[in-house]
Amino acid sequence: MKRKIRIVDTTLRDGMHAVSHQFTPEIMAEIAQRLDEAGVDTIEIGQGDGIGGSSYQYGFARATDEEYIKAVSKVLKNAKLDVLLLPGIGTIEDLKVAHHYGAKVVRVATHVTEADVGEQHIKFAKSIGMEAIGFLMMSHMAEVDKIVEQAKKFASYGADAIYVTDSAGALTPNEIAARIKAVKEATGLPIGHHAHNNLGLAIGNTLAAIEAGADIVDGTCKGIGAGAGNAQLEVLIAVLTKLGYETGVDLYKIMDVADDVVVPHMVRPQVIDKNSLSIGYAGVYGSFLLHALRASERFKVDTRDILMEMGKRKTVGGQEDMIINVAYELSKQK
Amino acid sequence: MKRKIRIVDTTLRDGMHAVSHQFTPEIMAEIAQRLDEAGVDTIEIGQGDGIGGSSYQYGFARATDEEYIKAVSKVLKNAKLDVLLLPGIGTIEDLKVAHHYGAKVVRVATHVTEADVGEQHIKFAKSIGMEAIGFLMMSHMAEVDKIVEQAKKFASYGADAIYVTDSAGALTPNEIAARIKAVKEATGLPIGHHAHNNLGLAIGNTLAAIEAGADIVDGTCKGIGAGAGNAQLEVLIAVLTKLGYETGVDLYKIMDVADDVVVPHMVRPQVIDKNSLSIGYAGVYGSFLLHALRASERFKVDTRDILMEMGKRKTVGGQEDMIINVAYELSKQK
Repeated sequence: MKRKIRIVDTTLRDGMHAVSHQFTPEIMAEIAQRLDEAGVDTIEIGQGDGIGGSSYQYGFARATDEEYIKAVSKVLKNAKLDVLLLPGIGTIEDLKVAHHYGAKVVRVATHVTEADVGEQHIKFAKSIGMEAIGFLMMSHMAEVDKIVEQAKKFASYGADAIYVTDSAGALTPNEIAARIKAVKEATGLPIGHHAHNNLGLAIGNTLAAIEAGADIVDGTCKGIGAGAGNAQLEVLIAVLTKLGYETGVDLYKIMDVADDVVVPHMVRPQVIDKNSLSIGYAGVYGSFLLHALRASERFKVDTRDILMEMGKRKTVGGQEDMIINVAYELSKQK
Repeated sequence: MKRKIRIVDTTLRDGMHAVSHQFTPEIMAEIAQRLDEAGVDTIEIGQGDGIGGSSYQYGFARATDEEYIKAVSKVLKNAKLDVLLLPGIGTIEDLKVAHHYGAKVVRVATHVTEADVGEQHIKFAKSIGMEAIGFLMMSHMAEVDKIVEQAKKFASYGADAIYVTDSAGALTPNEIAARIKAVKEATGLPIGHHAHNNLGLAIGNTLAAIEAGADIVDGTCKGIGAGAGNAQLEVLIAVLTKLGYETGVDLYKIMDVADDVVVPHMVRPQVIDKNSLSIGYAGVYGSFLLHALRASERFKVDTRDILMEMGKRKTVGGQEDMIINVAYELSKQK
C-alpha cells in the first residue's frame, strides 16, 4: 500500500456552478450523508463562488450559507465540513457564520499572484481553531518561482496546507508536477491539487500531482463542476485504489453515490464541448464565456478567437469588460 | 514545433459500438468528409468489430462493408481510408473487398499474446500494396517483455507500424509509457496507441504514449466509442497543439465536426458510468458487461463483483460462458 491521499469532495460547491447554484439544503444533506458513508474525508459545500457568493453578480443560490451548512452539519458523522472563501466575495463575517454552524475547514482562494489578500482570512480562521488552506487559483498563469513565492506567503500566515489550483483546466501533467514538487519542497506543507477537465486531463493531472508529491486532491461525483467539470471522483478513486494508494473511500459506494444519488440532480451530463475546451486551451476564466458568446454575436467574430485573444493578453477575473474591446478589434481586423 | 504526430480517427468504427452499428453510409460520408477537410490523416470505418463484423454474434451493421467503403472513398481528398480486421471475425476475402473499394490501410488486430494469428493477413495486405499495421489488443494483460515479443512477430511479418492498444481502458500513464518505449526500441517501427476512457485517462495516457515516443494516436469525435469511449479527438488536438506538436488537424474545424456534425448522430453523451468504470478497473472485455448484468440478476450478486472476478482470472474474449460459473460461485460464497 502506498501513502494515504486525502480526498476532498467539491460536488456540493464546484458542482453548484453546473446547476446554477440551485441544489436545495435537502439535496446537499442527502448527497453529503452518502459521501460521508463512502468515506470521503472532507466535503466542501456552498454557492459555487464560496461563502458570501450568493448575489446578483455571482448568481443567487437556492438557500443561504447558513441553511446549507446547518443541513449538512447535521448528517456528517466522520467527514469534515469545508467552505471556500474568495476574499472580496466572502468576508470574515461570512466565515464566522460558517464556523458557527459547523464548518471545520476553510479554503482561502486567491488569484495565484495575490496570496496577500488572504492573509487576514487565514489568520482569523486559525485564531478560531479552524483548519485553513491557502488555495492558489489560475496557477497556469504564473511560473513555478512565482507560485513558490506565493505559497510561502500562505505558509507564513499559518496555512495548514497549500493548493495549486488549475481553475481554467489549462495545465498538462508535466506542468502540474513541476508546480506541486516545487511548492512542496519550498513549504514542507501538505500540498493539494484541484483540477478541471477542459483539456480532458483532470484525472491524468491529478495522478501526476500525486506522483509529484500531492497529499490532498479534489474531485466531484460524475465530474460535475464549472466549465468542463472537475476530476470525476469515483473514477479517481478507482485509479488510486488500482495503483495501491489508500484513500479511505469505498469504491463501490462512491460509484453508487455518483450514478444513483448525484445524477438524478444533474441538469445535463458533464461533457467537454467546444466552449469549455476553448476556455482550457486559451487559459481564461470560465466566467468569460457568456460575455464572449454575446460579443461574438454582436461583432460577428468567432467566440473562440475572442477567448484566445483574452488568453494571450493574460486577462484575469474582473476584466470581463475587455471582452467587448477585443471583439471590436477582431471585427476590424477582418 | 515538436515532431509530427499522425492522427487516426476511429469515430466511424469504434464509435459504431455506441450506436449499435447503425450509422448509415450517408452519415459516414458526411462525417468522413468533414474529418478529411479538418486535416485528419487516416480515417477508420466499418462495423465496430471491423470488416466482416456485421453478424448475429457481433451485431448487424446498418449497411455492408462494401457500401460503407464505397460511400466514404468517394468523399476523401487527402485522408487515407483504413479498416480494422480481427482475424477470426474478418477474413482475407473481406480484406480483398475492402481494398477493391478503396481501403488503403488495414489494422490487423489480435489479442496481445496472439500476433501469430495475424501473420497471413499482414503478409497478404503487404502483397497487394496496402499499409498494414499490427494492433495488439488488451495490452494491459501482458508484461512488457511479452508485448515486445509479440510486436517483433508483427514486425517480422512486414507490419509497417505496431499499436499498443488499451482495449479495456485499464492502463495508467506510466504503464503505457513503459510499453510504448520498449516496443519502439525493439522494433524501430512507428508505434501507435489506441486508448479507452474507462479510467478517465484516455487523453492523459495518449499524451504519456506520445512523450514515450508514440508516433500515431487514435481518437474519436466527442470520445464516441465502446464502453467509456475513446480519446476525445478534438480535445486531444487541443492538447497536442498547445504543447507544440504538429498534427495537421485544424483545431476549430475538428471542434466543429465533433459538436456540430457528430453530436446530432449520437444516441447518448459519452460519459463514464459505474459499468464502464468497472470494466476498466477489472481490466476485462467490454463485451462481458451485458452477460454480467444478466448473471447479476439471476444469481443476485453485484455485477461489479462478477467483473472483478473475471479480471482476476485473466479471462479473455470468448470466455463469456465463464461468467455464469463465476456468478454462481459468488452467490454460494455469500
